[in-house]
Amino acid sequence: MERREFLTAAGLGLGGSMLAAPLPAAGGTARWDMVMGFPDSMDILHAGAGRLAGRVAALTRGALRIDVRPAGTLVPETAVLDAVSRGDAAMGFTASHQFLDRSPALAFDTGVPFGLNARQQNAWMQHGGGLDLIRETLADHGVVPFPAGHTGTQMGGWFRREIQTMEDFNGLQFRVAGIARDILVRLRAVPQTLGDRDLGPALAAGTIDAGEWGGPHDDLRLGLHRAARFYYYPSFWGGNAQLSCYVNRRTWENLPTDQRAALKAACAETSLWITSRYDAWNPPALKRLLAEGALLRPFGLDILRAAYQATEDHLASLAAGDPQFRKVHDSWKPFRDDQQLWFRIAENSFDRFVSMVSAERNRN
Amino acid sequence: MERREFLTAAGLGLGGSMLAAPLPAAGGTARWDMVMGFPDSMDILHAGAGRLAGRVAALTRGALRIDVRPAGTLVPETAVLDAVSRGDAAMGFTASHQFLDRSPALAFDTGVPFGLNARQQNAWMQHGGGLDLIRETLADHGVVPFPAGHTGTQMGGWFRREIQTMEDFNGLQFRVAGIARDILVRLRAVPQTLGDRDLGPALAAGTIDAGEWGGPHDDLRLGLHRAARFYYYPSFWGGNAQLSCYVNRRTWENLPTDQRAALKAACAETSLWITSRYDAWNPPALKRLLAEGALLRPFGLDILRAAYQATEDHLASLAAGDPQFRKVHDSWKPFRDDQQLWFRIAENSFDRFVSMVSAERNRN
Repeated sequence: MERREFLTAAGLGLGGSMLAAPLPAAGGTARWDMVMGFPDSMDILHAGAGRLAGRVAALTRGALRIDVRPAGTLVPETAVLDAVSRGDAAMGFTASHQFLDRSPALAFDTGVPFGLNARQQNAWMQHGGGLDLIRETLADHGVVPFPAGHTGTQMGGWFRREIQTMEDFNGLQFRVAGIARDILVRLRAVPQTLGDRDLGPALAAGTIDAGEWGGPHDDLRLGLHRAARFYYYPSFWGGNAQLSCYVNRRTWENLPTDQRAALKAACAETSLWITSRYDAWNPPALKRLLAEGALLRPFGLDILRAAYQATEDHLASLAAGDPQFRKVHDSWKPFRDDQQLWFRIAENSFDRFVSMVSAERNRN
Repeated sequence: MERREFLTAAGLGLGGSMLAAPLPAAGGTARWDMVMGFPDSMDILHAGAGRLAGRVAALTRGALRIDVRPAGTLVPETAVLDAVSRGDAAMGFTASHQFLDRSPALAFDTGVPFGLNARQQNAWMQHGGGLDLIRETLADHGVVPFPAGHTGTQMGGWFRREIQTMEDFNGLQFRVAGIARDILVRLRAVPQTLGDRDLGPALAAGTIDAGEWGGPHDDLRLGLHRAARFYYYPSFWGGNAQLSCYVNRRTWENLPTDQRAALKAACAETSLWITSRYDAWNPPALKRLLAEGALLRPFGLDILRAAYQATEDHLASLAAGDPQFRKVHDSWKPFRDDQQLWFRIAENSFDRFVSMVSAERNRN
C-alpha cells in the first residue's frame, strides 16, 4: 500500500490489521516504509538500510520504492515488530532479540551467548533449517523475516574497574541487551537498560559500573572510551549479532514474483555489505580507541567457563518451558557442535597461526 | 547476443573478438553461456552456478537467461578467461588463480598463502579497494569480475607419509594448485598438476607422495581418503579461495541498468549460498572421512613458520618484478595486518574459546 493512502485510511479510523496487505498501486508501483529498529548513531546499519532501498529500486526499475524511516519518526525502535505485524509499515530493519517477550526463540535469529559466528549463522540459516524455523516462529506475528547482515563478534564492553573473578560480577550494574541479560542475572550482575545517548553519561557518572554496546566502530562513535577505560573482550554473548529485515506477511504474499526475488537478493547484498563494512571499519576504530587511552582486557577463562555453564543452564530452562524454543534449540545445538568440530580444525587453526605471526612481526 | 545467433555468426567465419558485445535481442531478452572453470565433481560450485542462473532469470523476469556449460563442453576449464575475453561465452565461473600466467596479481582475487579468510576477503573487496584493483587487473583482458563465493579454509591435503620436519618436503611430489606451487618450490617440494579424476589414482599408486584438493566435502567425493591416510591441516595456502564470475566487458557495458543490478545481486546471493553450503556440508563430510580411516595431522609450527617466510619472500619478489602485483599487494598487505589485529582480539578469541569448550564437552 502506498504510504500516503495508508495514512489517509488510518485517519478514517480503519484498524491497522485490515490494512495489512499493501498491494502494488494500479501503475504496478508501490512505496513502502521501512521502520528502523536502531538509533541513528549506528551509521553502518543506516547506510545499509539506505543501500537496501536503492538496490530494490534498481532491481525493480523503480516499481518498488522503500523509504527508510529513522527510529522514532513513525514508531519507536522497540515497536518495529508490532508496526510491521499490523501493516503500519510494510517493512522493518531490526534485530529479533528486541522481541524476546513475544517468543524467546527469536534469540536464535540474532544470536545467543557462545553461539554461532557470522559464517556459521549463515550456514545454519541457509542450509541447516534455521531460516525456516525463524519464519515459523514469526509467522504468528504476521511477519516474514530476511537475514540482512551481521555485526561480527562484538566487544565485551566498557568497565569502570577490572573484572578479575566471578565475584566482580556480583551486583555489577551492567548495561546489556538481549538474552544476555538473563545470563548476566545468573552471574549475579544487575542488567540495565540504556539507549545510545544515555549510556556514556551514565557510565561516566558511575550510575552504572559497566556497559556494552557493539564493536569498536559503534563504540567509538558514542565516545564510550571517555566514560570508562577497561575494554573487555570477547563479547561472549555477542559472538555475532544477525540483523533482520521484517516484511508484513500479507504484503509479502501479494508481492509479484520478481519483486519478491528483488527483495531477497537486496537483503543478501546488504548482508554482505554490512558485515564487511563492520569488518573493514572496526580495525581502524580499535586502533583509535587504544590511541585515546582504552585499555584492552580479556575475560579470564574461569569467567568464560562460568558464563558458558550459565548459558547452557538458561537455554535448557527455556527449552523446558517453551516448545518453540525447544524446537529451534534442537536444530541449532547439534549444528553448532558440528560447526565447532570443523571450524576448530581448519578455519580456527589457520586464523590463529596468521594472527600469531602477524602480532609477532608487527611488534618488531 | 543470443547463443544460437553467435554460433551461426561463428560458422560464417567471423572472428570472436568482433562478436564480443552480445546485446539483448530485439524482444529485450538475451541468452548467455556461462562456461565453468571447475570439474563436475565439485557439486556445490555447479549447484551454485545453476542457482545464479535461476536468480538472474527471476530478477529479470526471464529477460536474461544463463545456460551453465560444464567444463569441457564449450571450452576446457583452463580456457575460461580466454573464452570470456573473446566473447565466445558471455560469462564464466572460475577461480582467478587459474590465470596467474596472465597476471600474478590475480592471485589476490582467489587468495594467497597466509592471506585473508572469507570474511576478510569480502571486507577487502568491498570496502578496502580490492574489487577495484582486481577489476583494473582484468580490464586489459576484457573481463569484468564479480566475487561469487568462498570455499572457506581448505585442508592441507592427503599425504602417504607423515610430515614432521621441513626435510620431509624435500623432493615431495605434491599435487597443488595456484600460487602455492611457487611457495612449495621454495620449500623444495615438487609441485604436480593433476585433475580431479587422476589425483586419487596417482596418490594410491605412489606416483605422487601427496596431494591437496579442497575441504572435506570435495575430498570425500573424490574418495581421496582411500588413496592416502594422513589428512593435514590447515591448508596454509588455502586459508580461503574466492570464486569469481567473469563477464565479457563489452557485454557488460551494453547491459541495461536493471540487468546489471540483477547480475550483481545474483552474484552476492550466490556468494552467501556457496560459502554457507561449504560451511554446512564440510562438518559431516569430515566426520565420515574420520570414520572411514582418515588420520588428522596438524602442520607443525616450524613448518608453518618456514612456509610463512617463503610466502613473504615470494610475494616481495613478485612485487619487485610486476608493477600491478605491487600495486595490489600494497593495498592488500596493510589491510590484512589491520584485519589480523582486530580478528585476533574479538573474533578469534571468541571462536577459540567456544571450540575449546565444545571439544571438551563432546569428548565427555
